[in-house]
Amino acid sequence: MELPSVLQKLFKYVDDNKSTYINNLREAVAIRSISGQEMYRKQTCDMVDWTANRLRALNFEVTLANVGNQTLPNGNEIPLPPVLYATLGKNPRKKTICIYGHLDVTPASREDGWDSDPFILTESDGKLYGRGASDDKGPVLCWLHIIEAYQKLKEDIPVNIKMVFESMEESGGLGVDESLENEKNGFLKDIDYVCISDNYWLGTEKPCITYGLRGLCYFTIEIECASLDLHSGGFGGSVYEAMSDLIYMLNTLVDKEGNILIPGINKDVAPLERNEKEMYSQIDFDVNSYRTKIGATKLPHNENKTELLMRRWRYPSLSIHTIEGIKDAPMAPTVIPGKVTGKFSIRSVPNQTSEGIKENVLDYLNQKWKERGSPNQIQILMTASGPNWIENLNHAHYLAGQRAVQHVFGQKPDLTREGGSIPIAITFQKLTGKNVILMPIGTGDDNVHSKNEKMYIKNYIEGTKLFGAYLHEVSKLSD
Amino acid sequence: MELPSVLQKLFKYVDDNKSTYINNLREAVAIRSISGQEMYRKQTCDMVDWTANRLRALNFEVTLANVGNQTLPNGNEIPLPPVLYATLGKNPRKKTICIYGHLDVTPASREDGWDSDPFILTESDGKLYGRGASDDKGPVLCWLHIIEAYQKLKEDIPVNIKMVFESMEESGGLGVDESLENEKNGFLKDIDYVCISDNYWLGTEKPCITYGLRGLCYFTIEIECASLDLHSGGFGGSVYEAMSDLIYMLNTLVDKEGNILIPGINKDVAPLERNEKEMYSQIDFDVNSYRTKIGATKLPHNENKTELLMRRWRYPSLSIHTIEGIKDAPMAPTVIPGKVTGKFSIRSVPNQTSEGIKENVLDYLNQKWKERGSPNQIQILMTASGPNWIENLNHAHYLAGQRAVQHVFGQKPDLTREGGSIPIAITFQKLTGKNVILMPIGTGDDNVHSKNEKMYIKNYIEGTKLFGAYLHEVSKLSD
Repeated sequence: MELPSVLQKLFKYVDDNKSTYINNLREAVAIRSISGQEMYRKQTCDMVDWTANRLRALNFEVTLANVGNQTLPNGNEIPLPPVLYATLGKNPRKKTICIYGHLDVTPASREDGWDSDPFILTESDGKLYGRGASDDKGPVLCWLHIIEAYQKLKEDIPVNIKMVFESMEESGGLGVDESLENEKNGFLKDIDYVCISDNYWLGTEKPCITYGLRGLCYFTIEIECASLDLHSGGFGGSVYEAMSDLIYMLNTLVDKEGNILIPGINKDVAPLERNEKEMYSQIDFDVNSYRTKIGATKLPHNENKTELLMRRWRYPSLSIHTIEGIKDAPMAPTVIPGKVTGKFSIRSVPNQTSEGIKENVLDYLNQKWKERGSPNQIQILMTASGPNWIENLNHAHYLAGQRAVQHVFGQKPDLTREGGSIPIAITFQKLTGKNVILMPIGTGDDNVHSKNEKMYIKNYIEGTKLFGAYLHEVSKLSD
Repeated sequence: MELPSVLQKLFKYVDDNKSTYINNLREAVAIRSISGQEMYRKQTCDMVDWTANRLRALNFEVTLANVGNQTLPNGNEIPLPPVLYATLGKNPRKKTICIYGHLDVTPASREDGWDSDPFILTESDGKLYGRGASDDKGPVLCWLHIIEAYQKLKEDIPVNIKMVFESMEESGGLGVDESLENEKNGFLKDIDYVCISDNYWLGTEKPCITYGLRGLCYFTIEIECASLDLHSGGFGGSVYEAMSDLIYMLNTLVDKEGNILIPGINKDVAPLERNEKEMYSQIDFDVNSYRTKIGATKLPHNENKTELLMRRWRYPSLSIHTIEGIKDAPMAPTVIPGKVTGKFSIRSVPNQTSEGIKENVLDYLNQKWKERGSPNQIQILMTASGPNWIENLNHAHYLAGQRAVQHVFGQKPDLTREGGSIPIAITFQKLTGKNVILMPIGTGDDNVHSKNEKMYIKNYIEGTKLFGAYLHEVSKLSD
């Protein structure tokens, strides 16, 4: 496949401007847009303004949508950062692409063990270290840079561009869904395809395109045996202890291998399609380095690669996250907690629904509680849920994406799913009714949300090219 | 039983000096001797000096024993408050009584929900509210007041008195055991009986004398499945989760009724003595108000009073206190904790030993872990232990104590045990080889260690008389 001449020019321009792009990322990283810490709310809004100004310089029409206030745990209200909507081009003969990214980051400080200041972009050994370098300021800048490249080269941008950048993504996405719903028949009306670059390659070498995400059903079991915590010396032996009831209940959920013990839970799981297993077996995934990276002794399912990938992406899993009891427990607490709460979640897959899972789980746990025969008070709730998502792999949009990858990396991408959720993908799919693609440019070792977040310079630069190739390829689609 | 004339005089004097005694307690409560908070270390030492001065005024010979430094979690060292030793009288023809109490208190602040300033003694409705009013400044002052009463009335104090007051009791008793061991052949040498007033009546009306305490064996089970916390979306389904292993292990410990499932654990429990059950059945203990007070729906053992008391005092119990996993967990954590720790303890009873329990528990849990067949790393430890304690009820010292109660309250005390531990009782028993009595004066609703700690004025005053009657009665013992 020969590289189209416009991409040849674009790619050279991108290579030539590497240091400018790194400087831009340095500016962006320096703005502490930590959405989860109210003391940085101003900087979070500053980051929106900084991006808006850059977009205006690229001739985008920019709107900052006020999405109201956030109520803090102490009852105070502070304004949410606005959602940024930007439009470039309204040519009815061109396709219209909607690009999503986010401008906020998770907290970071040197005390967490960073080797450099997380808010000073630090180049070392071909990598750019800094909070947001990979998640998601880097990818956002790649989009801006490739638009600029088209313009500087005086090449026609072959599609109309719409951008949606939110700034509460790391903090529950407050306000963005409502805002997008309001734009269903406005900003989102004429969109043909949606592209999101806010996830990662599976490993470090092989590019991927992501077409599926698991959903989440979150449950709590709260059991109360006393209206206060009791001293185990004085009371032990004379109360039905809530903690042992809770442990009994949680012990009924999964077996050692992680199989979910709730009858019927798998009944809606999509059957394996012809060749589907074959597809997983071809994905570039090294079980040994995966095991080593997480520091496990042994992985389940006989450490079979195909089985492990399917268990992560296309089968449900259940994890028990925490058991809460005593507040501010000392090193060696000796109380009988009066009330305990267990929290667990199920990652759902097509064609499971949150409602179906909820019904299964509640029926089962209520039955188990009856069998337990404890006089204590119990409350079992599904406290949150989000749907799973799967996109049509054979859609022309995905084929265009794959061609774009081929242009830049000279190889086909792995087609992957992710085990986690990116709720915004489902929001876009639902509101536009159009095909959504996840096109990551960072790698699986970028340490997002952790210390020493980084992006390879190579990925930052090739990612910019990828977006250019993507715009080029989707512009040629006929449907 | 007619009241001896010396007690008649003493009791009248005590009644006449009620307001002085309350004022003295007001002074003591105002000194914030919070041993668990380093910022109050000076006040904790001030409380020792305040008490030493009062004892000197009563002609006690006072020694403040330096017990070294405390190493704080941050590595800093601060001096421990001294242990106060005081002696009054060395008449070889008199019995020598050793009295123990403590001068420190647990933290308290109005923000915890107190209705008054915890460090300003507040009289209301026949009660004296303030931190330490009941635990243990009130009882300590009762001892001082009754000595003073003997002296003011120019009555011969019929015994030699030794007092040991520590000031780290609420913070692990740092330093006191070593200090007492050093005094084994010194201060503690000529003691005949030991009396400790640092516990409470079972209810609010019936006095009691306490002759037994349960011991404690503290265990941790730590299981590690990964060297870091994992996102349950990305990893769920592909790891052996430590949390479900831990829940499996903890679920093998007790049944719903609280029966310990560890084979052999009860083999050393002392068999019921003849009439022992009868003794429990006669104790003044109201099951309904107990249930109501702790806010439980139903109590085990068919809510049978005798059975409940025996389960609290003379049978072992096992409580699971906490499961620790994610640090600083948010409201709805979605990680798979890489390492989890379960903490539980067993309250031991005569004739169980900590070593025997440890062996039983480790054997059993190791067997259960083998059955589980998990590849994860486990560490099971007994991290702390303290022995149980029981005293000879029929000893003349206990009979003297009972007569003292009869003098003041006109009724026999209940003879009780406690389910918790008071390690100092065992230390004194071991170092002196003499009979130890626990003679509480506060009531079961004094809210010690909690908000609105109080002592009834009635108990403060009658408690003072009780100590006078006790000194009178033990002085007459021949063995």
